[in-house]
Amino acid sequence: MKNKIRKIVEDNTSRKGKLFDFFIQALILSSLVAFAIETLPNNSNQTIELLNIFEIICVVIFTIEYSLRIYVAKKPFKYIFSFYGIIDFLAIFPFYLTRAYDLRALRAFRVFRIFRTLKLVRYNKALNRFHIAANIVKEEIILFLIITSIFIFLASTGIYYFENEAQPEIFTSVIHSGWWAVVTLTTVGYGDVYPITVGGKIFTFFILLIGVGIVTIPAGLVASALSKAREIENQSN
Amino acid sequence: MKNKIRKIVEDNTSRKGKLFDFFIQALILSSLVAFAIETLPNNSNQTIELLNIFEIICVVIFTIEYSLRIYVAKKPFKYIFSFYGIIDFLAIFPFYLTRAYDLRALRAFRVFRIFRTLKLVRYNKALNRFHIAANIVKEEIILFLIITSIFIFLASTGIYYFENEAQPEIFTSVIHSGWWAVVTLTTVGYGDVYPITVGGKIFTFFILLIGVGIVTIPAGLVASALSKAREIENQSN
Amino acid sequence: MKNKIRKIVEDNTSRKGKLFDFFIQALILSSLVAFAIETLPNNSNQTIELLNIFEIICVVIFTIEYSLRIYVAKKPFKYIFSFYGIIDFLAIFPFYLTRAYDLRALRAFRVFRIFRTLKLVRYNKALNRFHIAANIVKEEIILFLIITSIFIFLASTGIYYFENEAQPEIFTSVIHSGWWAVVTLTTVGYGDVYPITVGGKIFTFFILLIGVGIVTIPAGLVASALSKAREIENQSN
Amino acid sequence: MKNKIRKIVEDNTSRKGKLFDFFIQALILSSLVAFAIETLPNNSNQTIELLNIFEIICVVIFTIEYSLRIYVAKKPFKYIFSFYGIIDFLAIFPFYLTRAYDLRALRAFRVFRIFRTLKLVRYNKALNRFHIAANIVKEEIILFLIITSIFIFLASTGIYYFENEAQPEIFTSVIHSGWWAVVTLTTVGYGDVYPITVGGKIFTFFILLIGVGIVTIPAGLVASALSKAREIENQSN
Repeated sequence: MKNKIRKIVEDNTSRKGKLFDFFIQALILSSLVAFAIETLPNNSNQTIELLNIFEIICVVIFTIEYSLRIYVAKKPFKYIFSFYGIIDFLAIFPFYLTRAYDLRALRAFRVFRIFRTLKLVRYNKALNRFHIAANIVKEEIILFLIITSIFIFLASTGIYYFENEAQPEIFTSVIHSGWWAVVTLTTVGYGDVYPITVGGKIFTFFILLIGVGIVTIPAGLVASALSKAREIENQSN
Repeated sequence: MKNKIRKIVEDNTSRKGKLFDFFIQALILSSLVAFAIETLPNNSNQTIELLNIFEIICVVIFTIEYSLRIYVAKKPFKYIFSFYGIIDFLAIFPFYLTRAYDLRALRAFRVFRIFRTLKLVRYNKALNRFHIAANIVKEEIILFLIITSIFIFLASTGIYYFENEAQPEIFTSVIHSGWWAVVTLTTVGYGDVYPITVGGKIFTFFILLIGVGIVTIPAGLVASALSKAREIENQSN
Repeated sequence: MKNKIRKIVEDNTSRKGKLFDFFIQALILSSLVAFAIETLPNNSNQTIELLNIFEIICVVIFTIEYSLRIYVAKKPFKYIFSFYGIIDFLAIFPFYLTRAYDLRALRAFRVFRIFRTLKLVRYNKALNRFHIAANIVKEEIILFLIITSIFIFLASTGIYYFENEAQPEIFTSVIHSGWWAVVTLTTVGYGDVYPITVGGKIFTFFILLIGVGIVTIPAGLVASALSKAREIENQSN
Repeated sequence: MKNKIRKIVEDNTSRKGKLFDFFIQALILSSLVAFAIETLPNNSNQTIELLNIFEIICVVIFTIEYSLRIYVAKKPFKYIFSFYGIIDFLAIFPFYLTRAYDLRALRAFRVFRIFRTLKLVRYNKALNRFHIAANIVKEEIILFLIITSIFIFLASTGIYYFENEAQPEIFTSVIHSGWWAVVTLTTVGYGDVYPITVGGKIFTFFILLIGVGIVTIPAGLVASALSKAREIENQSN
């Protein structure tokens, strides 16, 4: 009996296992869509009730699934405290507390459950390459995060001294100027904060020429590490 | 007779075939320009009439070309239901229905016909490399699309909880916040929606540092796959 | 005599040639700065006069240099109609016509003269690598320019149909919508034009997810071609 | 005695050395946070006093550390005029002058002291790769900076001629237009300056298609040079 259930719940190479996975995956996506719709402000009472019923159905099924996974696991505690075990728990837990605290936002974390199926089926190899690539560039990425942080700090300090007098309400302090720094260096540029003094503009000019590169290099690093990972994979075959 | 026409219509290594292709290509471009001009609001009656006459000429020629392509094709049905066959059909079909329904917008799809000539002449090799590159990075691109979707969903949910109270008309629901998420993560940053609360700004800070990289990695992947495809091509020569 | 001048004007490995080149280069930069200052609206009469005198000095020296280059060239006509010959001519020519037509803007093209010195001295190898890289990715870049053009056209057409009714003054025609398309796809996002309808926003959502990659791939292609060019250079050494 | 202190101050492979480094690093970070808080406009008197006391403690400890580093250095003058020696000096020097001049901004340079610890511990190899990569692409980066400068100059001149008449207060001169050029080419696009004439928009269209690539290529170059540096490192092992 236990083995039969395990085959359905844990193994997804069998036909029944695939169907089970597909059903759970579809339910996760539906419950995420329902969650998004629930936040709409002008839902009719009927819609709200429907969404509530659907959420109860989801939580019941997810709870059964969670119990089954504990039941069939060879080491139940290892599953409970694994990454996916915690995610599975967080997917149902907020519901049982909702009357006491408003933890509905935690339902959004159900999105992480989508990874589980990815992990098992087709994209196993690609995810493996991601793992290799992450190992290759880990140190560079951390270094770049530190350099980026230092750069954002210096940019914030600089612009604060140039713009604070002219726009005291926007560049109120070095901390407030950090908002400008990150929005500028990532080239988002909403237009809610920008320098207006000549000094501030010249400062921004140089910050941009140097900084934009620093922020975009990590993406290039990851891309080239991924193609390196593919080479390693091909050589080992 | 059929062979002679085939040489002109299908073969574009011969001089006549090149001329025919060049003529059709020029007509496609002209008809696209005419289509764009037609949408201008203050066209004089004379201009409108001229554009109408030009459109009729285009459709007549395209219809003749389409008929000829069916006529000379060795397997007419295969052509009709091929990608280029459908594009060729869509290029003329809306005209004959225009009195009943307003399908003029479909004329914009004529732009795809430009690919046909590309395919045949000089860029054959380059297009082949694109094909190889697409096969190399297919899985990674799909994974990144999924990761990007998950990221956009989480960003939308997060910003909704931070900003909904302060700006209920902009961050009305998780779905409305999605517009902010995509405009921010692609670094477009129009400036129509941006966080104003301290919490929302700090959240955006971290979302940007992580997210901007995720969105730009696929472009780097395609670029490195294309240079890999070139190497493969060189080795097989 | 002719040989001596040639050594100064054309050869810049000798000490005198280096000095001559450095002097001309400094004069070009100064004349560009003077040109920029000249466009300031509130220059005093004294400043304007000074800038005029400096411009006359520059043109006189550039004219002498141009004459010398023709004089020492082994094939004068080849020089006159070469890229650098035309740039050198355009650097002085507008001055002599300025009373008849206002061609002062052409003076900005003097900036291209800066390349000449680059070409000769230290960056010869790097420029050579650029040449190799350009040859490697020429076809891909052209293909991407065509794909980008098609994409911009389709984006313009799409947004026109979604937004024209809601914002007729901004999305007046397909041609006007092109401004939105290029500002969005390059992720500049000034914020002067953006969709406000639900349909337009969803359309922009998908256009951005696909389009941003297309626009940034060429930069990655050039970068990887340049590192390929370096490898080729190292192998041939 | 001197050797014992040296082991703590300069060597950070020993346990005491690690502790000392960790303590100094934590103090630097805290003093940077304190500096940022100090710029907030509505600090209570109590907060200001606390921050002042903390700053005095920091400077005292940094001064002791600086003296110790001079004391244990084998060549004291070499240390004093080294990069890190100057940074260490700038971290304490402004405090002693603060009554005469307002040099508090210099305190932000303490951020560079963070590099010291990086240099010594885990990221030594990664920093070494950065050094190799910088050597590989030095020439290309300089060339691209020159090309970018030329491009920004030409873009500024062009937009000045198109927009000056329509928006004389924004595109006042070629120099003022430079602000537009850098904000546009780095794709920040705040939205404070943008073309409104048809000519200016068409000009921007072409500038963007070419220019965005030029500005993002250096980041790709650095990324591919870093992966090249990793290969070199692996081969030499």
